[in-house]
Amino acid sequence: MASLKVPHPVPSPAEDAESLRKAFEGWGTNEKSIISILAHRDAAQRMQIRLAYEELYQQDLIKRMESELTGHLEKAMYRWMFGPGEREAILVYTEVRKANPTPDPRVIIEIACVSSPEELLAVKKVYQLRYKHSLEEDVAVRFTGDIRKLLVALVGTYRYDGGEIDTRLAHAEAKTLHDAIDEKAFGHEEVIRILTTRSKAQLNATFNCYKDEYGTTINKSLPADSENEFFLALRATIRSLTSPCKYFEKLLRNAVINQGKDENTLTRVIVTRAEKDLQEIKEVYYKRNNVPLAHAIAKDTSGDYKAFLLALLGD
Amino acid sequence: MASLKVPHPVPSPAEDAESLRKAFEGWGTNEKSIISILAHRDAAQRMQIRLAYEELYQQDLIKRMESELTGHLEKAMYRWMFGPGEREAILVYTEVRKANPTPDPRVIIEIACVSSPEELLAVKKVYQLRYKHSLEEDVAVRFTGDIRKLLVALVGTYRYDGGEIDTRLAHAEAKTLHDAIDEKAFGHEEVIRILTTRSKAQLNATFNCYKDEYGTTINKSLPADSENEFFLALRATIRSLTSPCKYFEKLLRNAVINQGKDENTLTRVIVTRAEKDLQEIKEVYYKRNNVPLAHAIAKDTSGDYKAFLLALLGD
Repeated sequence: MASLKVPHPVPSPAEDAESLRKAFEGWGTNEKSIISILAHRDAAQRMQIRLAYEELYQQDLIKRMESELTGHLEKAMYRWMFGPGEREAILVYTEVRKANPTPDPRVIIEIACVSSPEELLAVKKVYQLRYKHSLEEDVAVRFTGDIRKLLVALVGTYRYDGGEIDTRLAHAEAKTLHDAIDEKAFGHEEVIRILTTRSKAQLNATFNCYKDEYGTTINKSLPADSENEFFLALRATIRSLTSPCKYFEKLLRNAVINQGKDENTLTRVIVTRAEKDLQEIKEVYYKRNNVPLAHAIAKDTSGDYKAFLLALLGD
Repeated sequence: MASLKVPHPVPSPAEDAESLRKAFEGWGTNEKSIISILAHRDAAQRMQIRLAYEELYQQDLIKRMESELTGHLEKAMYRWMFGPGEREAILVYTEVRKANPTPDPRVIIEIACVSSPEELLAVKKVYQLRYKHSLEEDVAVRFTGDIRKLLVALVGTYRYDGGEIDTRLAHAEAKTLHDAIDEKAFGHEEVIRILTTRSKAQLNATFNCYKDEYGTTINKSLPADSENEFFLALRATIRSLTSPCKYFEKLLRNAVINQGKDENTLTRVIVTRAEKDLQEIKEVYYKRNNVPLAHAIAKDTSGDYKAFLLALLGD
């Protein structure tokens, strides 16, 4: 469930565009007014506001905002203004194309594993339209070794999205995974094959068989070597395929623990999930940490950036 | 250009369905009449005839034909009756799912490389609808080693379809390919990465740079070990990506040389290309062999099967 709160009745796109224009003009920018409008409009409404703004003022709203806002708020608002598909394409592009620091595989894993096959396809189409490249080739160039094999296959596969489960196969592949982990053959192509090609329903059945037969989850069976990038990527893949809300809860927990050092992750998760499942993520967060997510974020952030994130949280 | 010839005016679907019904009834099946109708209707028209037949006789036309026809003609007509997308999905499924003999990687390579990204996507969607599996997972299970890496990446990638070329990149990747071949590191992941992720336009530029800089085509640089399945698959990949008509001409040439022992390939190429580029393939064939393709096929085949293929050739 989305955490986004849209007022009823909602002002017309032209009214919103006028209010934004007023917030930009005069002495200094009125960030509070901008947030009070845009943090409470869904993707289709934001698009309508962009169109209305362009028509009324012959100016691109996003470009204008870039010149009016600064810092974390500017970045977060820039992400927020795009609809899903386009936003995800920009997120991955920023990650795989920036020269330094090394790209964060989690951004790619999230988009490949949490999205439905159709959503991932939409991201790939927008990516090609914007950048004149395929997502696959950019990911393939940016990574090497086992992690490349994993990531390219994750973004490449058009997964089956149905609910059918083959129980015999689940047992067999749970054993394949267990053997591969036991033999410490983590780069083993069988592990990558299973994680990247099977449907989510089938993988869920396989992981359940794993737990039943070996008394532990597959994620716990992976060695606790937090330095190894490939293990980390495997864990993120498994978690984001089967329990996306738990996966995002952990990202947020770590980002908040990092005390203002991981705004990138914080912004990404809040902005990308606000219209999807942030409500559930908040619940998982509270259950795990006994603190409302809004409180934790309020402690970790400040100013208009904080106000924007809290508005998206919808509390 | 298609080789298929459709009469003008064309009978209505109901008239065609009635004529087919007559061809099925009475003493023996009138194969000639069936061929004279169906070998001269395009995919949309065949679909309309199926619907009309179902409505008039409460019977599935394809099922009825399966019981009326036999041998190579039955198989070819079964392939022909489906539109592209569905036919290709059936072709790959038959290949990857049959237990014996070992699957022919060329069927997968053709569909992945000759099709446009949108056509390949359509095949993958139909595949999932029909078989409740992704094409990717079935290919991944059926092959092993380097050939698996190649095939899974080929069917997985949603290639960029634009015409933009990065010349600097073409030079760099021609060198990467040359180094990999020189070091005999054919399973080298760089070769697979380049062939499976770059756009066709970019690959064409890369192969041209290769020729300019190393004085030979990339295909000729690969060792002439005709037993090595992976080299064969690499060659088929390169050829079907850049020169599909030449690729198909060679398949037909070998099938015809095999004198009635490779009807599978013969049927597949004629049926899948008749509505696409069989006209060009015929021209390439004539230029290469100094014999019209129709003559070669007439020599190699017989009876109604021969009549059907020649009708699709449109001569």
